[in-house]
Amino acid sequence: MVLGHFAFAQTNDEIKLRKIYDAALTQGKSYDWLNHLSNQIGGRLSGSIQAQQAVEYTKGELETLGLDQVWLQPVMVPKWVRGTPEFAYFETDPGITTNVPITALGGSVATPPKGIKAKVIEVHSIEELDKLGADKIAGKIVFFNRPMDPTHINTFESYSGCVDQRGSGAMEAGKFGALGVIVRSMNLRLDDFPHTGGTNYGDTPENKRIPAAAISTNAAELLSTTLKLNPEINFYFKQNCKQLEDVQSFNVIGEIKGSMYPDDIIVVGGHLDSWDLGDGSHDDGAGCVQSMEVLRIFKEIGYKPKRTIRVVLFMNEENGLRGGKKYAQVAQNNNESHVFALESDSGGFSPRGFSFDCSDADFERIDGWKKLFKPYNAASFVKGGSGADIGPLKNENIVLAGLRPDSQRYFDHHHSDNDTFEHVNKRELELGAATMASLIYLFDVYGTESTQK
Amino acid sequence: MVLGHFAFAQTNDEIKLRKIYDAALTQGKSYDWLNHLSNQIGGRLSGSIQAQQAVEYTKGELETLGLDQVWLQPVMVPKWVRGTPEFAYFETDPGITTNVPITALGGSVATPPKGIKAKVIEVHSIEELDKLGADKIAGKIVFFNRPMDPTHINTFESYSGCVDQRGSGAMEAGKFGALGVIVRSMNLRLDDFPHTGGTNYGDTPENKRIPAAAISTNAAELLSTTLKLNPEINFYFKQNCKQLEDVQSFNVIGEIKGSMYPDDIIVVGGHLDSWDLGDGSHDDGAGCVQSMEVLRIFKEIGYKPKRTIRVVLFMNEENGLRGGKKYAQVAQNNNESHVFALESDSGGFSPRGFSFDCSDADFERIDGWKKLFKPYNAASFVKGGSGADIGPLKNENIVLAGLRPDSQRYFDHHHSDNDTFEHVNKRELELGAATMASLIYLFDVYGTESTQK
Repeated sequence: MVLGHFAFAQTNDEIKLRKIYDAALTQGKSYDWLNHLSNQIGGRLSGSIQAQQAVEYTKGELETLGLDQVWLQPVMVPKWVRGTPEFAYFETDPGITTNVPITALGGSVATPPKGIKAKVIEVHSIEELDKLGADKIAGKIVFFNRPMDPTHINTFESYSGCVDQRGSGAMEAGKFGALGVIVRSMNLRLDDFPHTGGTNYGDTPENKRIPAAAISTNAAELLSTTLKLNPEINFYFKQNCKQLEDVQSFNVIGEIKGSMYPDDIIVVGGHLDSWDLGDGSHDDGAGCVQSMEVLRIFKEIGYKPKRTIRVVLFMNEENGLRGGKKYAQVAQNNNESHVFALESDSGGFSPRGFSFDCSDADFERIDGWKKLFKPYNAASFVKGGSGADIGPLKNENIVLAGLRPDSQRYFDHHHSDNDTFEHVNKRELELGAATMASLIYLFDVYGTESTQK
Repeated sequence: MVLGHFAFAQTNDEIKLRKIYDAALTQGKSYDWLNHLSNQIGGRLSGSIQAQQAVEYTKGELETLGLDQVWLQPVMVPKWVRGTPEFAYFETDPGITTNVPITALGGSVATPPKGIKAKVIEVHSIEELDKLGADKIAGKIVFFNRPMDPTHINTFESYSGCVDQRGSGAMEAGKFGALGVIVRSMNLRLDDFPHTGGTNYGDTPENKRIPAAAISTNAAELLSTTLKLNPEINFYFKQNCKQLEDVQSFNVIGEIKGSMYPDDIIVVGGHLDSWDLGDGSHDDGAGCVQSMEVLRIFKEIGYKPKRTIRVVLFMNEENGLRGGKKYAQVAQNNNESHVFALESDSGGFSPRGFSFDCSDADFERIDGWKKLFKPYNAASFVKGGSGADIGPLKNENIVLAGLRPDSQRYFDHHHSDNDTFEHVNKRELELGAATMASLIYLFDVYGTESTQK
């Protein structure tokens, strides 16, 4: 009767998934939660008042869901502040200036109070700095202008191929005596939004760190053209951002205790912090409210999980990953057994499937569930990365996964003033939540390779 | 050596598709064309100046592509005009009114010059009219308020399940002596845009036709709630739209002559007309520029098709289908052999695949190409409808297909002031064009079941 049993189980799963999607599409709360996070609270940079408001708001909302437990997990986070709005222009002739949309990179040092004005050298890679050498770089502003490659279908690949300029440009250019760094925004589109994001100085001593900022893609194109006409133009920028002392913050956690294997923990989460530009709707308000929605859906449809399902809203993904590290450390200290963790941190767009970081044996098992996701257009299962916050949980047993929504629009918004609530579509957000809940349900029912042992 | 040949052919196809996508994503013209159609011309209702401007503009652009032939195919089209902006309110107490966003349905008659003011009866289906009967309906305004079902994953199914209210509501309610009809907009979202679209009076004599209009979804919700509190409220609306005499217009056609089988014709197209609200960017400017882009890509990558590839920009899909019918009639008169036709008329969103209207044998052949589309996330091949304009070409031999983009956002825009250029994402539009060009390429190379005979 193996075949009969299998056929029944499949049907049962199909029915459950349909219930999950119906609950998300007709009674969903994720969009309202996101509206509050985005429009009542706004950008939630680690250590900010808004981040704390988001902690309190989401804890309060989780408490209304009838979970078995909701708590805050303390974590110290870095506090970087932007200060007064940045300002930049380039000067083609003395006194003839063109303003440039600019934003300091996260973690950057300030310019001197009067700003920096210097000649510009345009480069397209960090390797190019070596070839140019200190002779050509010292005393100048280095302009990193390698665009994202539009031919990748997955725009995250275009991002990976470019983001070293933002992440390491200032550290590397500083070694050659550059005065500052400006970076073309990580954006596939030509527009006027500068996009921030973390920059990393490594072990560069504080007095050797040079300021770094992003300019919009349109400004990068204009500056590059202008430099071709006249390499002697000056670029000016001013920013007074600052790194303050670490402050207390929290991961927000809620759970439904497993009825059969309470010690098997399944995590679903996103990160509650965001950059301070825009309101962090796609990055990663969406992932937070979708994760909360997974547990709400289980409650609504009366599904009682066998394993413990835990929603974790991680703090400080953007500039420190302190929340993710803390969560994994506490889990280890408590000897907790995490069997599966899913993160949503690729925007609230139409879900296409998942990326799995797991053993081949686990992937083969999971791949068998794919057909259940076909009716929902979310059956793209690939091996690959998962999410930054759940990364510290990695070991040989756990399965890690990331939701993979359609990626075409993500970098129009990411880390900029253009990441706002009106760019999230209610149905796309809800479909993502339902797709996540469906996968969590299947892991709850069938476990992983390690739970079979 | 069959196996070897096959393997080589596959590799060759993979390379060709990659070239097609690269050409679309790096050198694409579709977005610029759409910008012009939308922002320089605007809504292109059949018989309008804008429709004629669009004919001239697209013909001129096709002429720059180095095709073998570009021409206009004359077709007489209906000319319906909206007149002065519609106006509506409901009155809860004498003189206490709430304005309502409203738009006349395409083809509707006008109200009397002073408008119509009457009691409202809310219904949820055409069948409900029968149950209520003339007693309850005569002298009233019938308010069709069945919402689109949010649980369908393909929103076109939600649309199909609702659009009879708009298409036949006025004809049916008129039989029971209703004075007018207002319809909840075909929109899954709650917002303030009324959505127009064709209404059909069948053979109702002109003097028995009653005016019909759509109100926004928010207004429909508010009106419904208000009616529950007080069924005696009055609704007022006024519109002076008018059906004029048919006028001359054109399908715009361009072709690359086939090098080996010039008599096998492959069509790719969209419809050039739109409603007069918004600028018709998604419906169906997108489909037009994507179809033009297919031929431009072939020229750019130097692909010389074996069969004749023809782009057809059909006139009058929205309120008459005259262009589609005319094209098929001329094709028949000329004894042309159409082997494949592809329409894009579901918006310029991320492509997911195609829907095919063809024999099982053809579908099996086509299904073998699916794997080529997997790297582009566009491998959803289903049997189903194709497109309204190419429908008249249907016979036992031709394969018909429709591009199937992600459908979640389409009905936020469709037929409303909210269908505008800024809601089209450049990459999503370009990916659609590349996906279409890839399929056309495969049909050109491998033909259909009927071309094997």
